[in-house]
Amino acid sequence: MQDIFDHIEGHLDESIQLLTELVRQPSVSSQGIGFDKAPGLVKSMFEAHGMEVEIIPVPNDGPPVVLGSSDGESNNTLLFYTHYDVQPTDPLELWESDPFEPERRGDRLFGRGMSDDKGNIAARLAAIRAFKDVRGKLPCNLKFLSEGEEEIGSRNLRPVIEQRGEDFKADACIWEGGGRNLNNDPFMYQGLKGILTIELRNRQLSGDAHSSLAAILPSAAWRLIHALATIRDADERILVPGFYDAVKPPSPSELEAAAKLPDQSRSWRETFGAGRFVGNADTESLETNLLFHPTANVAGLACGYTGQGMKTVLPDQASAKMDFRLVPDQRPRDIFQKIRTHLDAKGFGDVEVELMGAVNPARTEIDSPWVQLVAETAREVYGRQPVIAPNMPGTGPWYDFGVTLDMPISTSGVDHPSHRIHAPNENIAIEDFLLGAKHAALIMERFGEKGPGHRTSSTE
Amino acid sequence: MQDIFDHIEGHLDESIQLLTELVRQPSVSSQGIGFDKAPGLVKSMFEAHGMEVEIIPVPNDGPPVVLGSSDGESNNTLLFYTHYDVQPTDPLELWESDPFEPERRGDRLFGRGMSDDKGNIAARLAAIRAFKDVRGKLPCNLKFLSEGEEEIGSRNLRPVIEQRGEDFKADACIWEGGGRNLNNDPFMYQGLKGILTIELRNRQLSGDAHSSLAAILPSAAWRLIHALATIRDADERILVPGFYDAVKPPSPSELEAAAKLPDQSRSWRETFGAGRFVGNADTESLETNLLFHPTANVAGLACGYTGQGMKTVLPDQASAKMDFRLVPDQRPRDIFQKIRTHLDAKGFGDVEVELMGAVNPARTEIDSPWVQLVAETAREVYGRQPVIAPNMPGTGPWYDFGVTLDMPISTSGVDHPSHRIHAPNENIAIEDFLLGAKHAALIMERFGEKGPGHRTSSTE
Repeated sequence: MQDIFDHIEGHLDESIQLLTELVRQPSVSSQGIGFDKAPGLVKSMFEAHGMEVEIIPVPNDGPPVVLGSSDGESNNTLLFYTHYDVQPTDPLELWESDPFEPERRGDRLFGRGMSDDKGNIAARLAAIRAFKDVRGKLPCNLKFLSEGEEEIGSRNLRPVIEQRGEDFKADACIWEGGGRNLNNDPFMYQGLKGILTIELRNRQLSGDAHSSLAAILPSAAWRLIHALATIRDADERILVPGFYDAVKPPSPSELEAAAKLPDQSRSWRETFGAGRFVGNADTESLETNLLFHPTANVAGLACGYTGQGMKTVLPDQASAKMDFRLVPDQRPRDIFQKIRTHLDAKGFGDVEVELMGAVNPARTEIDSPWVQLVAETAREVYGRQPVIAPNMPGTGPWYDFGVTLDMPISTSGVDHPSHRIHAPNENIAIEDFLLGAKHAALIMERFGEKGPGHRTSSTE
Repeated sequence: MQDIFDHIEGHLDESIQLLTELVRQPSVSSQGIGFDKAPGLVKSMFEAHGMEVEIIPVPNDGPPVVLGSSDGESNNTLLFYTHYDVQPTDPLELWESDPFEPERRGDRLFGRGMSDDKGNIAARLAAIRAFKDVRGKLPCNLKFLSEGEEEIGSRNLRPVIEQRGEDFKADACIWEGGGRNLNNDPFMYQGLKGILTIELRNRQLSGDAHSSLAAILPSAAWRLIHALATIRDADERILVPGFYDAVKPPSPSELEAAAKLPDQSRSWRETFGAGRFVGNADTESLETNLLFHPTANVAGLACGYTGQGMKTVLPDQASAKMDFRLVPDQRPRDIFQKIRTHLDAKGFGDVEVELMGAVNPARTEIDSPWVQLVAETAREVYGRQPVIAPNMPGTGPWYDFGVTLDMPISTSGVDHPSHRIHAPNENIAIEDFLLGAKHAALIMERFGEKGPGHRTSSTE
């Protein structure tokens, strides 16, 4: 492999050039910015790396999926999952350089998407280029998928999986988002939580009334407050009957892996000024709670007058936005029904609940051969034992690929906590870029030889 | 009196001219618009009617109080309470003519403040002019007070009452806001509710967090929701211990007066689309509930993301604005303490409560001689039996004049429900203006002869 690694290092300037070009093209999915050009740019880059490329439309005129493919020496087919959309840039005033005009400062490159996830696209392209230049061929068949809505919950991806899933199917999949942790150990994760997002709304009057009328006219604010109070109690327990029924306890390997994760409690305390933790959890329980507990979060409350001072108004309506992070084997639509049934049973039939978004949770078993292969290659490239999280506390379409398309998934990437992903001054350290590219290359090589190993079933 | 009434009718054009000039000058207290000129304009009009005038500053650079005074034939001194500030004009697009460029259409004049309360100022000035022109002198001593912050809760008036109260003191007081009701019966009211306005705030984190962290980081939204839920229950009962302790049941005369008020339930149903009423009250109870029940109203909730779609955020803080309408003999600062004690006892010591505003409730006894004198003169001027409400459901500084300065108060004015006060296209019907001016004149005449009658103590 040294020839491949040497090529990756020797062509770093071209890789930086490509990554710069990719970051210079805005692609902010939540604001719909840049998608006239971004998919075509990704397509042309994939083509320049010898892939056949299709731009696959998604429903609702969302940013399309770009799918490249290339044959290789073995019959084993690998899928790279990435996304070419990025987070918004606000607060813009905190950026030290234009987020869409990449700038190198020292051994880091700055710009939106530099690490998440354009850095991964460019690193994997560097690995592909190395194989094609040095050996003339990839060591395995490859499918390279890049979606355009990961940062907004992959909201149009599911119907595409249903219609075109066979074209995405491979023997194994490498997700985005791995890399190194704060201790510079290689870091992998093996699943994602699901999510249910809802909006609760109540209306009692056809328009706002003077608050003196509160003596006789009903209040939407009070209806909403009392409805919400039945969903999670003051001791932070979720009260919706059946909410926890489908929760599958983590396996012994998953618990063991979670126990090995570094203690982040000091960081939660310092970054967020948290004086206590949910359920008054002690420091030792934090990581397992974060990974394995489902949540009921109030993301927003909207009602009446919220400006300076007072306005004596009886608001006609009130609403709340909520998200529920779900764990295997909870299902968002089932939880949605349970919330509706619960509110009805508590006498809140007048509180509307709208389903806004639904993603299933999923994990790939941590002791599956595929995870072991990826971990072993990480140890070789990074020179250190990888840390493996059973899952992350966030959400993504892991289920769609891992369960619906029945592939073992593991992670590799260019990430590092110093990269400030989603925040101002997002950046990538050149070293992480090179490590990520080499890891991608070694995974392709080893996978070409061995395949994914014995298949193990994913969750559900 | 016919000579006085003839003068008022004969000089209607000049009165309209004066009212037009007054309305043309903006004086929006909630937005601080127009107070460079408005107090001076009122002063010059008072002076043109033979009064000595003082502009009395209020704390916090608020719009000042204008106080005119004039001697009369008898030793009895009457106080006119009015205000020269007006409500904001929004939504401006619903006005058919410029709110500050008065327009006559048919027998109505349109403009902001035309009825509330510049119409009352102009009508009382018309009565004063009539006496001065026809008889050379007022029938009684007069103090004419016009404040500039009534529409924002007279928030700087109390310290002025404490320092300068003696200068406002009279043997009796005529409030603003009387007139005719929908049946064209003369309408009077004999008191106002008090108010406590507060803001509740909770903060759990130093900044917003990604909602995946809701599994371990505490939520300000949930803290606020559970704290609020302890204040009023789902059956619309206020739960703060001691909240009702000081409530004095209405007297038999007050209950009797309330029972005679016209049924407004259809209007509540139609105007606000109310499908039910607080406490599931029946139609017969509505008016007494409205007048005699204190309230706990949520005027606003502010927390997290409230835009389109979803943002998966764990908000760092949450807040609620509340107002409590109070009835005799509740005291806002006492209720504030009880809320604080209650939240502490319920384990919500971390929920901050800030006192934003406090006004005491007060009534003047409905069967006092002064109310009888005003009612009798109303019957003479309007030719119909007046309807007398023991109090209104709203709030104003009745307590400061009625209790602190120990004056009997009653109401007279130019109001009519068709005048759309506080709303777009505020107007005054010429007939109501003339009736209000004549009633003011007859009150002055009768009061000059008889005084306020035997004094009766106001509430408390």
